Amino acid sequence: MAGGEVVVETLDSRVLRGNPLRDPARRDIAIYLPPKYDPTKRYPAAYAIVGYTGTGKSLLNIDPLGEDLKSKLDRLIRTGKMGPMIVPMVDCFTRVGGSQYINSSAIGRYEDYLLKEIIPFIERRYRISRRGVWGKSSGGYGAIVQAMLHPDTWQALADHSGDSCFEFCYIIDFPAALEAFRDHGGPAGWLRWYWRQPNRRKEGFFHPLNALGMAAHYSPNPRSPHLGIDFPFDLETGEWRPEVWARWRAWDPVNMVERYARVLRRMRLVYIDCGTKDQYNLIWGARTLHAKLTKLRVRHVYEEFDDTHSNIQYRYDTSLPLMWKALSR
Amino acid sequence: MAGGEVVVETLDSRVLRGNPLRDPARRDIAIYLPPKYDPTKRYPAAYAIVGYTGTGKSLLNIDPLGEDLKSKLDRLIRTGKMGPMIVPMVDCFTRVGGSQYINSSAIGRYEDYLLKEIIPFIERRYRISRRGVWGKSSGGYGAIVQAMLHPDTWQALADHSGDSCFEFCYIIDFPAALEAFRDHGGPAGWLRWYWRQPNRRKEGFFHPLNALGMAAHYSPNPRSPHLGIDFPFDLETGEWRPEVWARWRAWDPVNMVERYARVLRRMRLVYIDCGTKDQYNLIWGARTLHAKLTKLRVRHVYEEFDDTHSNIQYRYDTSLPLMWKALSR
Amino acid sequence: MAGGEVVVETLDSRVLRGNPLRDPARRDIAIYLPPKYDPTKRYPAAYAIVGYTGTGKSLLNIDPLGEDLKSKLDRLIRTGKMGPMIVPMVDCFTRVGGSQYINSSAIGRYEDYLLKEIIPFIERRYRISRRGVWGKSSGGYGAIVQAMLHPDTWQALADHSGDSCFEFCYIIDFPAALEAFRDHGGPAGWLRWYWRQPNRRKEGFFHPLNALGMAAHYSPNPRSPHLGIDFPFDLETGEWRPEVWARWRAWDPVNMVERYARVLRRMRLVYIDCGTKDQYNLIWGARTLHAKLTKLRVRHVYEEFDDTHSNIQYRYDTSLPLMWKALSR
Amino acid sequence: MAGGEVVVETLDSRVLRGNPLRDPARRDIAIYLPPKYDPTKRYPAAYAIVGYTGTGKSLLNIDPLGEDLKSKLDRLIRTGKMGPMIVPMVDCFTRVGGSQYINSSAIGRYEDYLLKEIIPFIERRYRISRRGVWGKSSGGYGAIVQAMLHPDTWQALADHSGDSCFEFCYIIDFPAALEAFRDHGGPAGWLRWYWRQPNRRKEGFFHPLNALGMAAHYSPNPRSPHLGIDFPFDLETGEWRPEVWARWRAWDPVNMVERYARVLRRMRLVYIDCGTKDQYNLIWGARTLHAKLTKLRVRHVYEEFDDTHSNIQYRYDTSLPLMWKALSR
Repeated sequence: MAGGEVVVETLDSRVLRGNPLRDPARRDIAIYLPPKYDPTKRYPAAYAIVGYTGTGKSLLNIDPLGEDLKSKLDRLIRTGKMGPMIVPMVDCFTRVGGSQYINSSAIGRYEDYLLKEIIPFIERRYRISRRGVWGKSSGGYGAIVQAMLHPDTWQALADHSGDSCFEFCYIIDFPAALEAFRDHGGPAGWLRWYWRQPNRRKEGFFHPLNALGMAAHYSPNPRSPHLGIDFPFDLETGEWRPEVWARWRAWDPVNMVERYARVLRRMRLVYIDCGTKDQYNLIWGARTLHAKLTKLRVRHVYEEFDDTHSNIQYRYDTSLPLMWKALSR
Repeated sequence: MAGGEVVVETLDSRVLRGNPLRDPARRDIAIYLPPKYDPTKRYPAAYAIVGYTGTGKSLLNIDPLGEDLKSKLDRLIRTGKMGPMIVPMVDCFTRVGGSQYINSSAIGRYEDYLLKEIIPFIERRYRISRRGVWGKSSGGYGAIVQAMLHPDTWQALADHSGDSCFEFCYIIDFPAALEAFRDHGGPAGWLRWYWRQPNRRKEGFFHPLNALGMAAHYSPNPRSPHLGIDFPFDLETGEWRPEVWARWRAWDPVNMVERYARVLRRMRLVYIDCGTKDQYNLIWGARTLHAKLTKLRVRHVYEEFDDTHSNIQYRYDTSLPLMWKALSR
Repeated sequence: MAGGEVVVETLDSRVLRGNPLRDPARRDIAIYLPPKYDPTKRYPAAYAIVGYTGTGKSLLNIDPLGEDLKSKLDRLIRTGKMGPMIVPMVDCFTRVGGSQYINSSAIGRYEDYLLKEIIPFIERRYRISRRGVWGKSSGGYGAIVQAMLHPDTWQALADHSGDSCFEFCYIIDFPAALEAFRDHGGPAGWLRWYWRQPNRRKEGFFHPLNALGMAAHYSPNPRSPHLGIDFPFDLETGEWRPEVWARWRAWDPVNMVERYARVLRRMRLVYIDCGTKDQYNLIWGARTLHAKLTKLRVRHVYEEFDDTHSNIQYRYDTSLPLMWKALSR
Repeated sequence: MAGGEVVVETLDSRVLRGNPLRDPARRDIAIYLPPKYDPTKRYPAAYAIVGYTGTGKSLLNIDPLGEDLKSKLDRLIRTGKMGPMIVPMVDCFTRVGGSQYINSSAIGRYEDYLLKEIIPFIERRYRISRRGVWGKSSGGYGAIVQAMLHPDTWQALADHSGDSCFEFCYIIDFPAALEAFRDHGGPAGWLRWYWRQPNRRKEGFFHPLNALGMAAHYSPNPRSPHLGIDFPFDLETGEWRPEVWARWRAWDPVNMVERYARVLRRMRLVYIDCGTKDQYNLIWGARTLHAKLTKLRVRHVYEEFDDTHSNIQYRYDTSLPLMWKALSR
């Protein structure tokens, strides 16, 4: 069963050079090329951006109970569910655990990195017809937000279980984050301590990591002594800071879609799905998005499924063929 | 070991008559009278208001691994930890699961009931020197809020693990509440269904009950078709409704103390404690209150203890003697 | 709504005097007398024995979301679901957290206490026609075991969610118990420490308490230095001790029924139920009992219900009328 | 930073041909070759066998918060923690979720596969000085059991959090397994249903998978209608079947070490570790092993660490250098 091929290329970023978290500027990009890839032809490209605590290459991780992305793409193409497509897998991992794929003075310019460096880099090497962006969780968030912000770049998006309705998905992490920060002399102290731990996936670590990471994206503040980040709560007492929270809310897709309705209507595919048992409560963001897009007359595909946020790569069986179709029409 | 006595009196309320939830207007009040109670003498009274899903008499429930309130009061007095005190145990239970001890068009006027009916009723029968109010959870909330609102009535308060910092203690219930309401045709349908269940303490039921109950207290709206209640989220999609949430925030003790600093300074006792592992995250509300009261120069007792929100009646061993002392000075 | 009455009597036990755990020999018995109780008539008596960590009087605890036993009995009689019945509520609580209602050299002779002291004590004061025994959890265990052992005493039994299939209900506690015992210098050290804790219902405490309590019942050994108890595991390493476990197994109702089939066939009521989601996995013991009783041609009532082990007092609405009927025929 | 290389070879097995679960006979083996690998030299080989639900290649999975095995080996060698070593990663995955690396009539002859096919296959291609076997969980189990059974093959073993003290690690899965089997018409029906699920890592699926898989290893029975497997419980009622359980116990390392003490004394390395918070309670098996080995005067390295069963690959930083040293001496 001859399948496609995964090529790994290395890119030295200018944009990431000197980033505040000292994350590497030199990074790999894994690129799936379909079977019988012909360098003289144009292919649609579905850029994969991953969720928090992952990186592009983790999509290729082997699971004997499941299916890695390469096997999935090979199978979807082999069985005629979709045609040949190029799938670049992007590495935007950072010291705060991942990326929301937006620029932030506290982290670096990952939005620019994706747009101004990765896309040109890929497309100098591979001939692309049209471009889609897709991902799960933070990757789903990135997909819908980047498509809204850069409709000239992206012609399709798939947002799987993406961050939204921030009141329900993020606040649940804050109490444990507050405790962790207090225990380690603040967010900076916690982050240093965290990276010294041999097991960084211990239960409970995700809360402070996620709270810190999201604050770094949504409320950076170069004048803050806490890693250049404002927090929506007082770091000592937990007192709510509505003015910081308002900055987060401005980045919530459910609060952005009205403004970007026009550009979303131009997309060839707006795909949104979410599990009804999503443990980060993302189903409510998805439902809100669906209701708003419907009201705004943005054509979109919306699906709910009976599952949680975890191990739901099988959902790509639905979105990727739709994306291929949308980009190939 | 001769102890005190618990007398149960029955009060027919005018205030509660015709309340919107059809809760009974005729209710018992259990009153602890200390050993050697002498009806010709005056005693301090520590009014007990209980937490959500409880009622006054539940304080007397037997636990062979713990200590019921009567045994505790007997012991504290017998061992000289405090002097004789009268402890009325109030019943403000409602169909939405309890009370926050404030008036609400959606529930009834339980604040008035407490102030205008229970206190006079008790004090016609028993001679009271001074009055304190105390409770845990919603009872702790009621204690601090009622003391702020009615400083001429109350001279002391003890707030054990009381509701506060609403962002952290209430929003966690909303996703499950949304789901439950959807499954049963809205909050009214859910509530009817709920009361038909033989086991109303099933895991998971607390979320919709608490969300509904709090909304009924903090954002009643006689014109709402949903039991006369506004919700801080869209009942179909979960979309956040900041304007309703703002009404809740106005009732958050952490947002009230500045306004009531002057009356709090007049209290003979302001007692606040909370467990550092409180599963409703109330420690952050407690810490915020403590920080604000300190800044506002309100003298108060503040304690943190290494426990959760559950089975912490042993904390009354600390607060009740302080209250007796404060009311007896 | 005139209801029955609860009388509390005090009994000085000879049997419990000098028990090894120094638990009180003088104890209260609460006795429910039906409405219009007539001391000249005979009534059936349904002796209530409670589950672990409870005591007779806890059956009377108030729950505004549920129903205490007195209200339940009043209602069942008032609505004609059953006729008048006397319900004694027995206190067999011990320092190891409760009772399995069998004699043990490590705890005391609670089986004798029930049979030789409580029953005569009650029946000197109240005229009894026939006797049933019922309870939940350890009380359900006690009911079926005592009925098997003493068929001349008991004519009916109701076993709600009773301990059985010990492999599934007890072993789950052992790893946490082992850890706790190690942390406190062995079972004796742990028990002393435990009783010094102000909150003895902390999550996690139940595991060592239950493991210790069950070992004290099923594998006492006067020569053991560990409170006169053998454990089915090595206290240092956890190594399994099959010979001790075999002693436990001899007390498992599923392993007893064959031997006692004849006496069970004489019962006027053998009632067994269990929740399909019982968190102690007791449904499998119940299913095994049901299958064996069926095979042994013991007439019995067997019900499964969709609930857990907790807050299932509503099940008594089914068993108590059946017991009344069986005892009254 | 030049590192080693991972070579993937494919082996057509005779031993696995026609296995009862129809698992593939043709499989990949990933082989780590150290930096500057010289095919003319001999190297020690540390055969990696993985835990349940994994396969050899999953050791190479990327984790930006952790470290994949290739990076780890490169780093350990680069920093001088150990010398060059070959690490074959074995694929013994089966339809029942993995392997315990013993022959079973219900699954196939994976022990023979490892011994009689994989080792010769590897060692025809790569020159090996001495051999060790190591793994985590079921892989740890396989390591200690295979070393005991085949001391002429293996000169060193590392057992990380390996299955042992079966009473504590396996019985916890049985109640949920029983329920799942009943819901799907028995183990065979469940297994068919399971493999039709798109997400086979849903919470809860592990219990029946593990119970089924272990029964398939420890109590196969060609005459059983249930996939040729006996279960230690009645599939309808859950009744305990001690005679089947006795067959499991015979495969428990804690019950094997006495018999194999002599061969274990010959090992160049016996390494055992376990997390004190292992959620499968394996710490008690580890402690029992440690106590028994000590008593039997088997020299061994024993470590406990403060962690669970999950994400503990950092423990290989300790064992692999010891294994290299042992095999190189």
